[in-house]
Amino acid sequence: MSGRAEEPIADLGFARVDLDRESRTGDPEVVFADGKTPEQVVEILARLHDAHPSRAVMATRVSAEAAAAVAAALPQAVLDQEARAVTLGPLPAPRGRVCVVAAGTSDLPVAAEAALTCRVHGAEVETVTDVGVAGIHRLMAVRDRLDAADCLVVVAGMEGALPSVVGGLVGVPMIGVPTSVGYGASFGGLAALLAMLNSCAPGVSVVNIDNGYGAGVAAARIARRAR
Amino acid sequence: MSGRAEEPIADLGFARVDLDRESRTGDPEVVFADGKTPEQVVEILARLHDAHPSRAVMATRVSAEAAAAVAAALPQAVLDQEARAVTLGPLPAPRGRVCVVAAGTSDLPVAAEAALTCRVHGAEVETVTDVGVAGIHRLMAVRDRLDAADCLVVVAGMEGALPSVVGGLVGVPMIGVPTSVGYGASFGGLAALLAMLNSCAPGVSVVNIDNGYGAGVAAARIARRAR
Amino acid sequence: MSGRAEEPIADLGFARVDLDRESRTGDPEVVFADGKTPEQVVEILARLHDAHPSRAVMATRVSAEAAAAVAAALPQAVLDQEARAVTLGPLPAPRGRVCVVAAGTSDLPVAAEAALTCRVHGAEVETVTDVGVAGIHRLMAVRDRLDAADCLVVVAGMEGALPSVVGGLVGVPMIGVPTSVGYGASFGGLAALLAMLNSCAPGVSVVNIDNGYGAGVAAARIARRAR
Amino acid sequence: MSGRAEEPIADLGFARVDLDRESRTGDPEVVFADGKTPEQVVEILARLHDAHPSRAVMATRVSAEAAAAVAAALPQAVLDQEARAVTLGPLPAPRGRVCVVAAGTSDLPVAAEAALTCRVHGAEVETVTDVGVAGIHRLMAVRDRLDAADCLVVVAGMEGALPSVVGGLVGVPMIGVPTSVGYGASFGGLAALLAMLNSCAPGVSVVNIDNGYGAGVAAARIARRAR
Amino acid sequence: MSGRAEEPIADLGFARVDLDRESRTGDPEVVFADGKTPEQVVEILARLHDAHPSRAVMATRVSAEAAAAVAAALPQAVLDQEARAVTLGPLPAPRGRVCVVAAGTSDLPVAAEAALTCRVHGAEVETVTDVGVAGIHRLMAVRDRLDAADCLVVVAGMEGALPSVVGGLVGVPMIGVPTSVGYGASFGGLAALLAMLNSCAPGVSVVNIDNGYGAGVAAARIARRAR
Amino acid sequence: MSGRAEEPIADLGFARVDLDRESRTGDPEVVFADGKTPEQVVEILARLHDAHPSRAVMATRVSAEAAAAVAAALPQAVLDQEARAVTLGPLPAPRGRVCVVAAGTSDLPVAAEAALTCRVHGAEVETVTDVGVAGIHRLMAVRDRLDAADCLVVVAGMEGALPSVVGGLVGVPMIGVPTSVGYGASFGGLAALLAMLNSCAPGVSVVNIDNGYGAGVAAARIARRAR
Amino acid sequence: MSGRAEEPIADLGFARVDLDRESRTGDPEVVFADGKTPEQVVEILARLHDAHPSRAVMATRVSAEAAAAVAAALPQAVLDQEARAVTLGPLPAPRGRVCVVAAGTSDLPVAAEAALTCRVHGAEVETVTDVGVAGIHRLMAVRDRLDAADCLVVVAGMEGALPSVVGGLVGVPMIGVPTSVGYGASFGGLAALLAMLNSCAPGVSVVNIDNGYGAGVAAARIARRAR
Amino acid sequence: MSGRAEEPIADLGFARVDLDRESRTGDPEVVFADGKTPEQVVEILARLHDAHPSRAVMATRVSAEAAAAVAAALPQAVLDQEARAVTLGPLPAPRGRVCVVAAGTSDLPVAAEAALTCRVHGAEVETVTDVGVAGIHRLMAVRDRLDAADCLVVVAGMEGALPSVVGGLVGVPMIGVPTSVGYGASFGGLAALLAMLNSCAPGVSVVNIDNGYGAGVAAARIARRAR
Repeated sequence: MSGRAEEPIADLGFARVDLDRESRTGDPEVVFADGKTPEQVVEILARLHDAHPSRAVMATRVSAEAAAAVAAALPQAVLDQEARAVTLGPLPAPRGRVCVVAAGTSDLPVAAEAALTCRVHGAEVETVTDVGVAGIHRLMAVRDRLDAADCLVVVAGMEGALPSVVGGLVGVPMIGVPTSVGYGASFGGLAALLAMLNSCAPGVSVVNIDNGYGAGVAAARIARRAR
Repeated sequence: MSGRAEEPIADLGFARVDLDRESRTGDPEVVFADGKTPEQVVEILARLHDAHPSRAVMATRVSAEAAAAVAAALPQAVLDQEARAVTLGPLPAPRGRVCVVAAGTSDLPVAAEAALTCRVHGAEVETVTDVGVAGIHRLMAVRDRLDAADCLVVVAGMEGALPSVVGGLVGVPMIGVPTSVGYGASFGGLAALLAMLNSCAPGVSVVNIDNGYGAGVAAARIARRAR
Repeated sequence: MSGRAEEPIADLGFARVDLDRESRTGDPEVVFADGKTPEQVVEILARLHDAHPSRAVMATRVSAEAAAAVAAALPQAVLDQEARAVTLGPLPAPRGRVCVVAAGTSDLPVAAEAALTCRVHGAEVETVTDVGVAGIHRLMAVRDRLDAADCLVVVAGMEGALPSVVGGLVGVPMIGVPTSVGYGASFGGLAALLAMLNSCAPGVSVVNIDNGYGAGVAAARIARRAR
Repeated sequence: MSGRAEEPIADLGFARVDLDRESRTGDPEVVFADGKTPEQVVEILARLHDAHPSRAVMATRVSAEAAAAVAAALPQAVLDQEARAVTLGPLPAPRGRVCVVAAGTSDLPVAAEAALTCRVHGAEVETVTDVGVAGIHRLMAVRDRLDAADCLVVVAGMEGALPSVVGGLVGVPMIGVPTSVGYGASFGGLAALLAMLNSCAPGVSVVNIDNGYGAGVAAARIARRAR
Repeated sequence: MSGRAEEPIADLGFARVDLDRESRTGDPEVVFADGKTPEQVVEILARLHDAHPSRAVMATRVSAEAAAAVAAALPQAVLDQEARAVTLGPLPAPRGRVCVVAAGTSDLPVAAEAALTCRVHGAEVETVTDVGVAGIHRLMAVRDRLDAADCLVVVAGMEGALPSVVGGLVGVPMIGVPTSVGYGASFGGLAALLAMLNSCAPGVSVVNIDNGYGAGVAAARIARRAR
Repeated sequence: MSGRAEEPIADLGFARVDLDRESRTGDPEVVFADGKTPEQVVEILARLHDAHPSRAVMATRVSAEAAAAVAAALPQAVLDQEARAVTLGPLPAPRGRVCVVAAGTSDLPVAAEAALTCRVHGAEVETVTDVGVAGIHRLMAVRDRLDAADCLVVVAGMEGALPSVVGGLVGVPMIGVPTSVGYGASFGGLAALLAMLNSCAPGVSVVNIDNGYGAGVAAARIARRAR
Repeated sequence: MSGRAEEPIADLGFARVDLDRESRTGDPEVVFADGKTPEQVVEILARLHDAHPSRAVMATRVSAEAAAAVAAALPQAVLDQEARAVTLGPLPAPRGRVCVVAAGTSDLPVAAEAALTCRVHGAEVETVTDVGVAGIHRLMAVRDRLDAADCLVVVAGMEGALPSVVGGLVGVPMIGVPTSVGYGASFGGLAALLAMLNSCAPGVSVVNIDNGYGAGVAAARIARRAR
Repeated sequence: MSGRAEEPIADLGFARVDLDRESRTGDPEVVFADGKTPEQVVEILARLHDAHPSRAVMATRVSAEAAAAVAAALPQAVLDQEARAVTLGPLPAPRGRVCVVAAGTSDLPVAAEAALTCRVHGAEVETVTDVGVAGIHRLMAVRDRLDAADCLVVVAGMEGALPSVVGGLVGVPMIGVPTSVGYGASFGGLAALLAMLNSCAPGVSVVNIDNGYGAGVAAARIARRAR
């Protein structure tokens, strides 16, 4: 457990690791590996693990090169290839359940990042795949599973319509994740993002394009507080 | 009926009315009243009616001021207030049937423009209102009516998800019309437009934001050729 | 209470009121008054109240004209002028507590819509005003109140930085609401929207620009499930 | 033929193949290969072929790697290199005729995708190439072929003007396909897309940039219903 | 005639009138009245006329209020209502001929500004109206007039296709002027602007949306130098 | 003078006035009047004046209605009509000199806001008007005045080129202010903003479109520290 | 020389070469090589040369691969590496003179394409390099050369200010070419494009980003008509 | 030292090196290496060093290839790998102190470019790293260092909130540098850019995305003039 008084910040020169974050927010800092060198990723991850030895810490958007460096330096680290993420340390005991729903097969990497993040942040996860709105009966068939969750993460690219339909079926708190799946006038996920922001179904909130991580944190926090 | 040889163009000074269009495309020219003076609208409409006395001609996007000028000068003209359009002359006998589907109550003016345009262009029309995706059972309840049409016009604002869901239910040719209903990140209908362009349901084609007229012409041409 | 079997849809011609929504999602349909005539607003609100007599129903984005029509036809309706919203029927007993945080005085109307929506959807609400990041001590002074909530709604225009700072202070579930407060390169709230979507603080999810209503629904659903 | 009752969905874990789609819409599901692994493409294609043995199924946006995997696993599959698409099973007997019109040589791959899709969806196809508006006599020379079709697919990049000119010449139902051919302020096909959406010729509807597939489905559905 | 040595700048406090411009560029400064008070417009116009008494000076984008102030203070000034412009002083003897071509009736105000500007800058002008690409025969009928000009100004809104078609018919120097005529995805003239910038016809150059003035200056300079 | 210990925040209910700001940053808080009621503007301004009686406080973007309310309630307040700003209390003794340079007459209101802000924030100001790049000799004529300043504020709309030219002439610290002067593809000042951000002259930094206030604060802080 | 009657179009299957263009516009068709296979480029170029043996034909945007194919198949073709263009056949005797002005060294490839295009289209060319506005004296030093030309092509990236300054110095017809030189908020040349479209100097017209070819055709047509 | 009279411009054919810039602005020209060949970078750098032998000259955005060419031709040149910049000649004696503040580890390359540029332009520099707003205590811990500087350069990607928070803590002149760190709706740094332009903290001015160089020049000029 991190101690606020002793060492709120670990200064590595290139980074000031926020060791105090768990005591403020309930969750340790997570390493956003994109734009960092493999060496920096290893060093920050190791320092976070030292401060939180009994609870998993995590790095996201880990390149193949960084994953190799982590594997070499921290052999106990676990790589989730589909999620492009690494964890280090034991997962917390889960409270509450998140259901991650992916509109299509191509959305699976983002869904995997969300699911792993939920687990690292203390929630149980179930994943439902390929229930896009062009075959609405696929969604109807899983409606009970949606209704039973404490929070939903709904992942969709292209026109991003899935959260609107789900939001009309159940009243479970929901986070929409637009993905960059698509081409042309999808403009890298902008179409799905705008669609989710303009959802006519109430209660849909949204995170950045392809941001499974952010959705996972939000959902886990909601789920683990649920009765 | 207009004669190609005699007078393909009526030069009014401020406009060259295309009297030949019906012989080329099957439909007379239509007056886009926006940006024209009331006098110009009246004069073009009258000239089109002279050339096509036995078939309705039409003006769209007619302001209150222009509607008054038309009423005064051409008392036999008929104003459709919800559609903001004027017709002059008898509607053609309908061939084929178009079903105009509106996602919400606020989309009704655009749906009305589409419906009237279909009638002027020779198709029968049925309108289905307020079947947005947040209450999908409303759509399921009218599925047979959708399936029975020769062409669908699906009108929706906000996230514009309705064409995707309809496109997964029936295989009828379909034109999506995004509307400017919404606010903030709807960006005047851009969100709905992008959503429809990126529909994961096959066979959705799209017209300009709020362009009920364009959808009506396209749908009528499809419907009246249908077996 | 609405009965799913008896009358899932009330067809008013211009609208198909979704009387079944409460049984699916836990909350009755809400009237988005923008783009509807005053008469349509009155009629839908009345029909919803008939179906849900013991629980408040609500209309948002109510113009002065529509508010007057509601006051005349439904004298027991209550207008919240700052929120530009009308409620009809008794508020439900609150479960859980939402804290609505507004960055500046100009963001108050959006915060008011969020707060009222929370109450209509069954959560207790506290509002904290004018704690923008340019005077961070103002935020620090209310940190305990933020930490004590079951869900936060953080409302900010201009650069939309407040959710990032709040998200680094507490781990409470949070919905960010960008507002159109600003000018020039705020592009009607786009700057704040993008900032919140790109927040470096984990767990921030976002609704449409000026969408206090959507944030209120999402927050109430989270809060009322909380232990 | 797929049976709705027996097996509406084939759950492959990473995908829920919609075997029911043909019975709902008249056409089997198509594999959008982009973002799927070669193995996933092979497996879904094979499963679709099993369900629809007597009618061609199709995968679009097939990478060279996926094409090789398909060729190895499903030797009876046919690759259309220009269209970057694969078909499996016999083409249906054609009803109705689509004319695919390409503005320039660089638009040919998109035109090829549209043409193959039409054939897979049951329409006869004729292709007319390189009739851009900078040499309008080239278009005039093929006008009769345009007029004789049951539906047109008009493919153009750069300024995307071709549908407007064609739409003034003939009244055949038409789908415009903007392409990403161009540079600079073409913004990846946005210029052509906006031009087609704003066409002053009536009856032009539009699909996503480079979406020959979507145009092909829409056109085939229109053509095969035509008298 | 202005003298460079004597008084290159007339300092009015709120403006430094560039009296030297004619000696550098061949044409006097022109008053852009938008954003200036009526008094400022009058004063600058008067000062320019003093410096160039034998050659017309001009103000563009003149509001009704400013036009009235000019009429009161400078009774010899001439208002061109359609062009929303004022001239003061005798037009120069024309050299060369510009043909201003407008796609539609709604484009006439911009065409009028271009035509008047040409005259003020010393070229003869002919205007051709309503020859949009949806009725290409209207354009073919005036082809000889286009070919005979020394420079073309081609004005079009909506999809802005006219310059591409004209550019394939004649090799005369051409300036395209996109207009804000349109709605929805025309985005205030952006669609027409992008179309003209991406023209597949060679030799099309473009000015700002609705900038008849800029096109007029450019065209007059080209025409009056022509053999 | 405000005392940090005593009362860092004045809670007015609708606002938490930051009385501590001067002690942190050297300058009192300023009222952004846009989006606030006239009563709120009066009350905040009065409260700021109470806390800073010996130094001017300021409100910007003051509507005519708010200006009238201020004049009625705080008769000693001074309105700068061109700058649309109000000050209350004595201006500080100036240190350092800012030169505000406006490209055109239409840019004067933004320049006036910048100039007044400089004075309120303790710097001397000189304004140079209408030295746009289309008459570069006008700029050359004032070069010595530019060179003599401690900081420049360069205000320009349309293509926003002036900071680049000034930045090549002198090495004085410079703040560019893009304005919304222009039309069409100026997109409300976006063109000028992008131009200034991409200046090829070194050392140009930029504030929001029409943000004379922000430029004034920045420039005053630079100038009053200068030797 | 091409004969309109004999063979207006050469149908190569993948292309309809417009052999009639010279007789309509004065210049043969040019091959836009981007998006075409090397074989297609060779074949079209050869066919154009056959039709216009006594006058150079040209291909632009020629990749290294296509250049090699051309060199192998058409050894008499000449490659201009900086312009990425190929010519085949003798240059026409020049009439009139174009001055191509490049703001910076990085703009040289676009300037080279413009210069070669001018020569192929029958004008003499002079190039002036690296006279960007950050060192305005460099421009002043070449002012006489600018003034002596029949047409200017002004090439600039980043903030694209050069045409505005040049347009205030001389009254020669001018085509601005924005380039994609820059980064960040240059958005691939959008900043320079918008700046040139909003130039406060009169008479600037603009072509697409990096479109040296289009500017060259326009300038040559203007210059060769000049007295 | 460069002499204005003798050789204001060094004409290298592909470049006109501005040797006069130091005498006008106090700083020599800097080579923007992007888009220039390695040979051009070497030649311009050498020529600048010849003209300014006693003061460092600099090239920015130096590719690995150009860096190698510089090392080979100018062995006394110094490469700063993190900043991707090269200097040649002795750094000037520093006057004033700039504090460069980076929000995250991934922002370090831009911060390094800013820091080196400050040194080349005559200011002392201190760098503070990884004090993003998600852990505000990290920023509070360095507040005194911020307050002690003569100018701040604040570098941040993602939501770009750091300048707003810093601007509320200290009144030191500040330049914000948005970076392209982020993904999805960061749109290459646009989110951070808009956030900084809309900062609610007074006195924040901004440079282009990733433009550490521009910020460095601006900051050094401010700092070295400070008392």
